[in-house]
Amino acid sequence: METTDLRKLIGNPSEFFNKEIRLEGWIKTLRASKQFGFIEINDGTSFKNIQVVFEDGLDNFNELKKFKTGAAIEVEGILVETPDAKQDYEVKASLIGLIADCDSSYPLQKKRHTLEYMRTIAHLRPRANIYSAGFRIRSSAAFAVHKFFQEQGFIYVNTPIITSSDAEGAGEMFNVTTLNYEETLKTKGEDFSEDFFGRKTNLTVSGQLEAETFALAYKNVYTFGPTFRAENSNTSRHAAEFWMIEPEMAFTDINGNMDMAEAMIKYIIDYVLENNRDEIEFFNKFVDKGLIERLENVRNSDFERITYTEAVEKLIASGEKFDYKVEWGIDLQTEHERFLTESIYGKPVFVTDYPKEIKAFYMRHNDDNKTVAAMDLLAPGVGEIIGGSQREERHDVLMKKVEELGIAAEELWWYLELRKFGCAYHSGYGLGFERLIMYLTGIGNIRDVIPFPRTPNNAEF
Amino acid sequence: METTDLRKLIGNPSEFFNKEIRLEGWIKTLRASKQFGFIEINDGTSFKNIQVVFEDGLDNFNELKKFKTGAAIEVEGILVETPDAKQDYEVKASLIGLIADCDSSYPLQKKRHTLEYMRTIAHLRPRANIYSAGFRIRSSAAFAVHKFFQEQGFIYVNTPIITSSDAEGAGEMFNVTTLNYEETLKTKGEDFSEDFFGRKTNLTVSGQLEAETFALAYKNVYTFGPTFRAENSNTSRHAAEFWMIEPEMAFTDINGNMDMAEAMIKYIIDYVLENNRDEIEFFNKFVDKGLIERLENVRNSDFERITYTEAVEKLIASGEKFDYKVEWGIDLQTEHERFLTESIYGKPVFVTDYPKEIKAFYMRHNDDNKTVAAMDLLAPGVGEIIGGSQREERHDVLMKKVEELGIAAEELWWYLELRKFGCAYHSGYGLGFERLIMYLTGIGNIRDVIPFPRTPNNAEF
Repeated sequence: METTDLRKLIGNPSEFFNKEIRLEGWIKTLRASKQFGFIEINDGTSFKNIQVVFEDGLDNFNELKKFKTGAAIEVEGILVETPDAKQDYEVKASLIGLIADCDSSYPLQKKRHTLEYMRTIAHLRPRANIYSAGFRIRSSAAFAVHKFFQEQGFIYVNTPIITSSDAEGAGEMFNVTTLNYEETLKTKGEDFSEDFFGRKTNLTVSGQLEAETFALAYKNVYTFGPTFRAENSNTSRHAAEFWMIEPEMAFTDINGNMDMAEAMIKYIIDYVLENNRDEIEFFNKFVDKGLIERLENVRNSDFERITYTEAVEKLIASGEKFDYKVEWGIDLQTEHERFLTESIYGKPVFVTDYPKEIKAFYMRHNDDNKTVAAMDLLAPGVGEIIGGSQREERHDVLMKKVEELGIAAEELWWYLELRKFGCAYHSGYGLGFERLIMYLTGIGNIRDVIPFPRTPNNAEF
Repeated sequence: METTDLRKLIGNPSEFFNKEIRLEGWIKTLRASKQFGFIEINDGTSFKNIQVVFEDGLDNFNELKKFKTGAAIEVEGILVETPDAKQDYEVKASLIGLIADCDSSYPLQKKRHTLEYMRTIAHLRPRANIYSAGFRIRSSAAFAVHKFFQEQGFIYVNTPIITSSDAEGAGEMFNVTTLNYEETLKTKGEDFSEDFFGRKTNLTVSGQLEAETFALAYKNVYTFGPTFRAENSNTSRHAAEFWMIEPEMAFTDINGNMDMAEAMIKYIIDYVLENNRDEIEFFNKFVDKGLIERLENVRNSDFERITYTEAVEKLIASGEKFDYKVEWGIDLQTEHERFLTESIYGKPVFVTDYPKEIKAFYMRHNDDNKTVAAMDLLAPGVGEIIGGSQREERHDVLMKKVEELGIAAEELWWYLELRKFGCAYHSGYGLGFERLIMYLTGIGNIRDVIPFPRTPNNAEF
């Protein structure tokens, strides 16, 4: 008899009512009396469990009463409607067999564990409700990203993970090497001629610069891959390894860039609200009571668009006391960002045209000679969620900037040269995927939205 | 006036006939006489160009006659049908303006370049036809992979890139470190306590082991991410950085594993044949004349399934002379694999149940005590394209194997422990994404299907 995935059964139970079905799954809970018992099982294809009821007529009744939480079992029986019970239907079992037993040291018994403890059992925690809900949403949101861009004809591009360039000109980077340490002891200084790539290489901090070369061939492209920061920070929002989405669009100015970012965020929210309703309701109930309201508000609002200069004026005029004093020229802090998006506007806000001194070298200089065509998207509940800009496409302006900042032009020759060959105006932005998942779920620590998080002193699995 | 993407226009030209349109794109070719001229332009959203015709009535007629290949321009005009011409329609321009000029040193003039040369201009080569066709197919195939698995309820899981485990127990690995070499000079031996993660870490060679932990929570999962090999091999089929697809399925034996692999390959081929017809025809015409026939043959055939023992018997019985002699126990070479799939069966072949000595430690031992439940998919024109197995789920059997092979059990504690907690039978396989793209396009060198390939001494971009 063929096994049915729980997601199919739960997705359309009436198709199975009063029919014989076969399930394979894991025991979530089991309780039994002398004459009958109940097992909640889940095969992993659904966030929700299904209840199986068994009676003493089964040959192995006394044995299966002792089946353990976490064991894998097979179940055959009839799916029956239970209009008077808590759940709408259950399986009346004619057969329950053990597929794989579970040792009694299994840590995921019914009692609750802290998330801190769960991180020490990263190989088992995906079975717990909060992770099950979170990783399902992570998977859906990833697909929504691809679907959104593909539907609009964007080309997905895999920019290199190992690179010799430093897109940000700043971030702390991981070195990649095949030199072993004993050998290195014998070498002197920074000589990488014997290394695998014959040069110093590191893990990418962004695929943007490479994505620009593809945007200037295919107009609309996006990356979606891992990026890295070797920053020794132990905050709830930083990981050493995280996934980024970086669209890059030729023939697109900063306004088109904002249009795309806004449409993307709304699309992903829609997709998850539609495809992961059970998981979202779980988070709304147990993790973040305002979640659904906040997501629906974002989906339904027209995002505000203000300049940095206006933002600074509004913040000063608000009279609000901040830890960091607001004045033109400062980098906005999370407290400022959240005040803007939560208290002043009550919806997502794009802030544009930041002082050139606080933004990256590749952002397009505005005519005022003070600001660049940057844009950050601030969202209620979190602050900055997207950062982007129109890119400096003018070869002379960019060369001057690179010189001013002392950036090694010879290592970026290809990026600079791109400006000579039909370099249309173009724009792009970056979205940290894990930050998005935190936003979609209300999960407060980035370690809990990454399957095997990488943070300082943490790479066990 | 709004700009129209070329893909929309080419996808449904009749919608635009006799209407005013606006395009932005790059000049692919330009030829002009005294009274009129033709420009082929492309905005990157379509593999095909569109022809623009302009006449001396335009203000800047004499100027635009000198516009250069590679320059970015804007075009306004009427889309007219041209039933008597080579192309079905063209744009009769009322305005052509320069957006971004192209320096005369532009290497992608009309003349042909070798692929070797093109690799030295990785920032420009995506504009050339063969790369344009290849990277569009790469993007489509990536989406097809996600779509295939998502439609069946698989959970996408991002396994870690930086890891302290070595899934294969063999592959050469890249070290990841934040220790700088000067500091290292002062340290002694293999002491990584001061390193970022407090232990020795490397770039992953496979996400399989971690994916298994997720399959035992969600039943059906898949990875799709970068993997790495620090092998100093300069072949046309090896890169140091490449993307892998690794589905992992609980409650699935080796037969279900093969069913899934076969369905996936057919789905991807279907998707690309349907969505990238122009690109596939380009490859069929210019790169690999048998391509379409081969892909259609694969899509329409029932893949053969034979055991390794049968394969060896067939190869010996064939009387064919091979460089490597065939006898039971050898690892099949590409010549053997291709002979099986091309000459003996003329279609894809799964070979199963290989000698345990030549396969990885995690593959499930068969009852004959000689073979393991491995499966390789061999495809005409290339040989092995997928490798997979049912996994050893029995704790005692796996522990014995780990001991025999001297694998450091303490580093794999979580993988081994997984076998204690409801470890259902499960299976999975790996597909090298670049190998798939080579197969779908006929491109012969892996360096030409990766945006910025990483090979020994090559990490310039």
